[in-house]
Amino acid sequence: MNEILEQTLLYDFYGELLTEHQKEIYEQFVLEDFSLSEIAEQAGISRQGVHDLVKRCQKTLEGYEEKLHLVEKFLSVRKKVDQIGEILTEYEREEKDPGEMAARIRKISDMIIEEL
Amino acid sequence: MNEILEQTLLYDFYGELLTEHQKEIYEQFVLEDFSLSEIAEQAGISRQGVHDLVKRCQKTLEGYEEKLHLVEKFLSVRKKVDQIGEILTEYEREEKDPGEMAARIRKISDMIIEEL
Repeated sequence: MNEILEQTLLYDFYGELLTEHQKEIYEQFVLEDFSLSEIAEQAGISRQGVHDLVKRCQKTLEGYEEKLHLVEKFLSVRKKVDQIGEILTEYEREEKDPGEMAARIRKISDMIIEEL
Repeated sequence: MNEILEQTLLYDFYGELLTEHQKEIYEQFVLEDFSLSEIAEQAGISRQGVHDLVKRCQKTLEGYEEKLHLVEKFLSVRKKVDQIGEILTEYEREEKDPGEMAARIRKISDMIIEEL
């Protein structure tokens, strides 16, 4: 996974555990793609201060993921739900045997339930 | 949802964010169903101390849920995956139209993807 996507996912899941100030700066840097200098100027802190804050936020978010693994879990569930979609598409396009389609979907949905 | 189930789910999701000591006491009380007095005796702290610690853990776990809503999300996804299972069972038992089954499953799996 590329770094920006990873940071965005971590922020989606755990961002609410940051302080308001951290969230504001972090969003500007990761989601809105402002430069450190631009953020520093706007927030009235040093460029280095912004840099340190962003690094600290990343470490905090990664720490939550190391403990809870919720991003990992949700990506795995999403992948399986995508597979269900693909099986349905195959069936619709090629008129595959519906019994086989049902059995394959059953297997995946059981795996999702185990994972949740 | 009953209280024990709710506390268990909260602990499943956010328990790793408690300290080792908190986890030990909280598990004995909520998961293993020991009494406050039994835990107090074993841990060498007062009954009131155990009570306060358990309450504080509950508040901490509830605080995470208020911010992240991951248990709520998980329950909602699980409900939808269960619905997919029910649709498959209906199809298998009553030989419902496979095209209709596929369309219904598609709708639910799309809803899950949106939610994840």
